[in-house]
Amino acid sequence: MQSVSVFAPATVANVGCGYDVLGFALEKPGDRVIMHLNNSGQITLDRIEGDQGLLPKDPEKNIVTAVIKYYFDKLNIRQGVSVELYKEMPFGSGLGSSSASAVAGLVAINELMGNPLTREQLLPLAMEGERLACGNAHADNVAPSLLGGLVLIRSYDPLDVVRLPYPDSLHVAVLYPHVEIPTLEARKILKTNVPITDAIKQWGNVGGLVAGFCTGDEQLIGRSLQDYIIEPVRAMLIPDFYQMRTIAMKNNALGFGISGSGPSVFTLCNNPDTASRIIELLKNHLAKEGIDSTGYISAINNQGPVIQQSNK
Amino acid sequence: MQSVSVFAPATVANVGCGYDVLGFALEKPGDRVIMHLNNSGQITLDRIEGDQGLLPKDPEKNIVTAVIKYYFDKLNIRQGVSVELYKEMPFGSGLGSSSASAVAGLVAINELMGNPLTREQLLPLAMEGERLACGNAHADNVAPSLLGGLVLIRSYDPLDVVRLPYPDSLHVAVLYPHVEIPTLEARKILKTNVPITDAIKQWGNVGGLVAGFCTGDEQLIGRSLQDYIIEPVRAMLIPDFYQMRTIAMKNNALGFGISGSGPSVFTLCNNPDTASRIIELLKNHLAKEGIDSTGYISAINNQGPVIQQSNK
Repeated sequence: MQSVSVFAPATVANVGCGYDVLGFALEKPGDRVIMHLNNSGQITLDRIEGDQGLLPKDPEKNIVTAVIKYYFDKLNIRQGVSVELYKEMPFGSGLGSSSASAVAGLVAINELMGNPLTREQLLPLAMEGERLACGNAHADNVAPSLLGGLVLIRSYDPLDVVRLPYPDSLHVAVLYPHVEIPTLEARKILKTNVPITDAIKQWGNVGGLVAGFCTGDEQLIGRSLQDYIIEPVRAMLIPDFYQMRTIAMKNNALGFGISGSGPSVFTLCNNPDTASRIIELLKNHLAKEGIDSTGYISAINNQGPVIQQSNK
Repeated sequence: MQSVSVFAPATVANVGCGYDVLGFALEKPGDRVIMHLNNSGQITLDRIEGDQGLLPKDPEKNIVTAVIKYYFDKLNIRQGVSVELYKEMPFGSGLGSSSASAVAGLVAINELMGNPLTREQLLPLAMEGERLACGNAHADNVAPSLLGGLVLIRSYDPLDVVRLPYPDSLHVAVLYPHVEIPTLEARKILKTNVPITDAIKQWGNVGGLVAGFCTGDEQLIGRSLQDYIIEPVRAMLIPDFYQMRTIAMKNNALGFGISGSGPSVFTLCNNPDTASRIIELLKNHLAKEGIDSTGYISAINNQGPVIQQSNK
């Protein structure tokens, strides 16, 4: 029986000022999918672990199986597939949980079919998974999860995705406080119009951030990690956001921001020790407030999804 | 008698999507200032050429002398100075005419005083000149004129100016149609609020443009030269803007946009021959409509102001 196991990484979307246009992949956490071809003619979701029973079991509603249907529709394939989803990351966390599932599912089925599509060609299908998950086909989680590295979505129409260089020194401290903010709700509270003066500050910072990444200027990256438009609205949903920022910045972080729509926060550092130290300080801070949290230390993951086992 | 002659270059501000945050210097045209120290205790404007009699002759109102006053105030200097201004570029053209005058004046007086201030330290004084000229202390003309090259103003408060790398292949075709759009009026017609969807497109393009410059990706530069917010409003003030864009793009331009607040337009090309050809085509097009125009071909000017003669 043909089978494959694929890991797809969690991601930090927006990256401060780059709302809807920037994202990068983490080394961990992520989701794992095991997929078997069979003769049933059906896409079945046979096992979910790590979701605390909260994800839909209907294959048309669960992202990991829904995107396989999109894939088959695109290629005019009718094929039986059995899917097991191992959520090895929290969801509703702002770390691109649905994206990791969609990407793992798409890379797995594409591998089983002999890779007729490139990773870039899988991207629109993964974006349709995002539309199912949160009502909006945004690409700033699926693109870095699928392609690896640090990604700019320059344009959505036409879709233009650019992998950016970045200094190897960068390390990320991600903290997930165990409180829930559904992405859909987090998007709803955003304003539909913004003052042009704020928009100018924002694209000045996007320019600085991209220049910092491309030229390896860590201090410029840090100075540019400011979000005048989204963060002021979303920060209020995250416990002690500004106190956590102060702790991170006092302890040599380059910058600090909300990961995706939160509640996870990320700290960019120029070495792994600083990242580790900041995670401990932030966890301790939230613990004093009675809030559990999970921390992850990671470089930027340049590789993207990994085919861990393929038996074709 | 101590004297100095300084040339300061014209500039293209905004550069498509980078309203208020991006600008680059041209090799030509520009302004020239000749300055003499004397014992009068006064700042006098003794000669203006090339302004068709339109610039103020009052030393407190003319930019070139006003910024000398700002300079003296900052350094607590009282010194007699005689100034001659040779406008070797059009004004009201969107090529940073007032900026070139301010920068030439500041670099000249600083040279005569023995350069107590760095070029970076002169920048806030030049920005005050812009405030006098157009009511807004924007830096996207004065910064590239003063520092040379391609400049990102990441932030205005605090002022954070970043020189960006760019591919040497870039050449600029600038066309100045002989119609007048005062900067102040051109700024007034802009909206104070913008849809967040347009702002996202804009900062996606700013990210792409900066990435293209930093990594030398000419095609990415071209794709990113799109302005969803300012251009649609200002283009209507420029004769045949969209027809000129079509001509430029059909003839291998990387991108096309408004220079500053117009009416000048710029075309980015990846070689000087393409730039020359496009200038001829655009001039001919406007001539058929009865509109005179002036064209300039230039690489990006990495040097900035030039002290042509110093007799101290």
